[in-house]
Amino acid sequence: MTTDLWCLILLSIGAYLITSRIIPRFRDVFIRANLFGIDLCKSTGAEVPEAVGVLCGCVFLVCMFLFIPARFGQEFIRQKESFPHHELVEYITALLGVTCILLLGFADDVLDVPWRVKLLLPAIAALPMLLVYYATFDITFVVVPKPLRPFVGQSIDLGWLYYMYMMMVVVFSTNAINILAGINGLECGQTVVIALSVLSYNCFEIYMGEVPSHAHYFSVHLLLPFIGTSAALLRYNWYPAQVFVGDTYCYFSGMLFATIGILGHFSKTLLLFFIPQVINFVYSVPQIFHFVPCPRHRLPRYNKLTNNIEMSTVRFKQKDLKFLGRASIGILESMGLLSVQRNVGENREYTECNNFTLVNLILKLFGPMHERSTTIIILLIQILCSCAAFAIRYPLARLFYDV
Amino acid sequence: MTTDLWCLILLSIGAYLITSRIIPRFRDVFIRANLFGIDLCKSTGAEVPEAVGVLCGCVFLVCMFLFIPARFGQEFIRQKESFPHHELVEYITALLGVTCILLLGFADDVLDVPWRVKLLLPAIAALPMLLVYYATFDITFVVVPKPLRPFVGQSIDLGWLYYMYMMMVVVFSTNAINILAGINGLECGQTVVIALSVLSYNCFEIYMGEVPSHAHYFSVHLLLPFIGTSAALLRYNWYPAQVFVGDTYCYFSGMLFATIGILGHFSKTLLLFFIPQVINFVYSVPQIFHFVPCPRHRLPRYNKLTNNIEMSTVRFKQKDLKFLGRASIGILESMGLLSVQRNVGENREYTECNNFTLVNLILKLFGPMHERSTTIIILLIQILCSCAAFAIRYPLARLFYDV
Repeated sequence: MTTDLWCLILLSIGAYLITSRIIPRFRDVFIRANLFGIDLCKSTGAEVPEAVGVLCGCVFLVCMFLFIPARFGQEFIRQKESFPHHELVEYITALLGVTCILLLGFADDVLDVPWRVKLLLPAIAALPMLLVYYATFDITFVVVPKPLRPFVGQSIDLGWLYYMYMMMVVVFSTNAINILAGINGLECGQTVVIALSVLSYNCFEIYMGEVPSHAHYFSVHLLLPFIGTSAALLRYNWYPAQVFVGDTYCYFSGMLFATIGILGHFSKTLLLFFIPQVINFVYSVPQIFHFVPCPRHRLPRYNKLTNNIEMSTVRFKQKDLKFLGRASIGILESMGLLSVQRNVGENREYTECNNFTLVNLILKLFGPMHERSTTIIILLIQILCSCAAFAIRYPLARLFYDV
Repeated sequence: MTTDLWCLILLSIGAYLITSRIIPRFRDVFIRANLFGIDLCKSTGAEVPEAVGVLCGCVFLVCMFLFIPARFGQEFIRQKESFPHHELVEYITALLGVTCILLLGFADDVLDVPWRVKLLLPAIAALPMLLVYYATFDITFVVVPKPLRPFVGQSIDLGWLYYMYMMMVVVFSTNAINILAGINGLECGQTVVIALSVLSYNCFEIYMGEVPSHAHYFSVHLLLPFIGTSAALLRYNWYPAQVFVGDTYCYFSGMLFATIGILGHFSKTLLLFFIPQVINFVYSVPQIFHFVPCPRHRLPRYNKLTNNIEMSTVRFKQKDLKFLGRASIGILESMGLLSVQRNVGENREYTECNNFTLVNLILKLFGPMHERSTTIIILLIQILCSCAAFAIRYPLARLFYDV
């Protein structure tokens, strides 16, 4: 291991300790500033500070600012003429994107901007990255899988479509984490699992050493302090949550992953580690696109008597549903993935089904259970999916690509 | 003029129009989020949105993100091999510093962090700039004025002291604007005057073309959109203010100036445009360092009957003053720069003097007047000082430096 990696490990441990230290100290500051929420899955009704992810983000940034001279200072002394400016640009751009999304995410948490603006925020924060990508690399071709090569050739240049694709990676990864949320420890837990998975992937690639490992070192350098601060946040966000992470944190982590994937040139592999998020997104589609009515909150319902959480449901008039709504309910019900009750209400004209989120699906499949158990099950699924991702990435990918 | 400059001018006009458009739209959003203040120099007691500078900052950032490909895209196409990565690093680093201070400034406005943390924020946001400076230029020598050359030589290498100096430029310029504040239009007005002055200086240098003008183009590129958004903010912050700019804006503008000065290598000239801020700082020293008691607010006092503002005063026991407090009051009083009343109060044991700010000094010298007139006078002083700065920079500097 090189000196700068040791330095980074120390910084990351420091980041964990400092984040652990400042979160409880800022508790009252957040509540005084009106930044708090009530935990709907508890009977205490206590005020829980919201948007605490911003502290995480700030510690992460300071950590990275201190790491940059350790990373580049030596190279500067060694080779003043051939200083790797293009590498420095990558680090600074990554940090600019992250800082940007922290600013926008925190502004969103404070100002509570409308839904359609929310979707725009990650796109704005992705701009510098895409533009630096354009101004420096501008590599927009993708390698074609072997079975398709007779038709389209060895590789295909996507041009501006590739920029669209990168923008979509950012918008997807930021929002994907934001919508798989709602119970204590889930947002933070899933990102820690994803981060550890990506880190393992990077270490494996560096160890194998088949391709130049610069991109993987870049990823490791961003992930270690991120894991440090996130682990500290998870400690306080774990059941029973003393703080909420806020949109700030979800955007922050999603942006970080997208940046690593794009600037590290492994965005397709990255998406493999988002399988539960993809499942949650696909399952949510009927409500996100309003085929089925979508309430403001789709959190599970808390049962005071049993201290367990149960599926939350949405009720609507059967005749209000359009074709796509009826179709999606019909398909999911026939697959056993949706709990539907028809002809309820006084005039028997209503239909009631569970909200379309992975959390509710788990509660449908396993029955009502303790909030902490639900989080643990989803995190176990995330870990299993990461194992599956490795299986896809290595043995399976060999069938479709040259290694 | 080159294509990218035309593009920037259009973007800056767009920035003005968009900022003008969104500020009134976000009014209620800020008030709903508890981000508002009461204007103490008005009798209406209306709620005025606070920290609106964050909108300015976001529009500025988007504008710059769109400008970067226009600035570097052409060069990329022309000279793929010799792409000026070191120049791109400067832009991205400048934006990183600005984004960082926007995040910290907004967090400060929302969370209202303690005084000592406030001083730390600009220093944190300055880190990436200093570290990029270290990792890329690392030029730490200064040219010695002619009269001193027999003693210390042609130039002197300050080493790490130069980094301390740059850090101090950032901390000074951010806080200098923040403490010359408190009446409608002042924060925003002074920054617009400074920005226009620096812009004139850059244009003059580019026109003269004696030295490579890259640094001055860099400055122009950052200043134009900044002036666009600031002019829009000034429109709403002008008497009677419909919005307050917040610490966010003061930090943002201070950071921008510091960044331009440091990365554009004209930080000493930059400080010449801060003469009123320096005067205000020096005049404030007795209260900032608590030689004389400092109340939470040092705003002028509003007189409902005359609709004018008057000096605000601070009252303390004569015997509580230490030597430095007595000395500073004595010196300022003898120079006619402080209004002091001794032996006031029931037991005649109190002393009362005006608060040590430039705004109060103007009100002492010119007498009570309308709030708008006070702002106009201070802005006129700022303009006169900019003229003086040009006189110092050009004819006078020739006496001390080779041109």
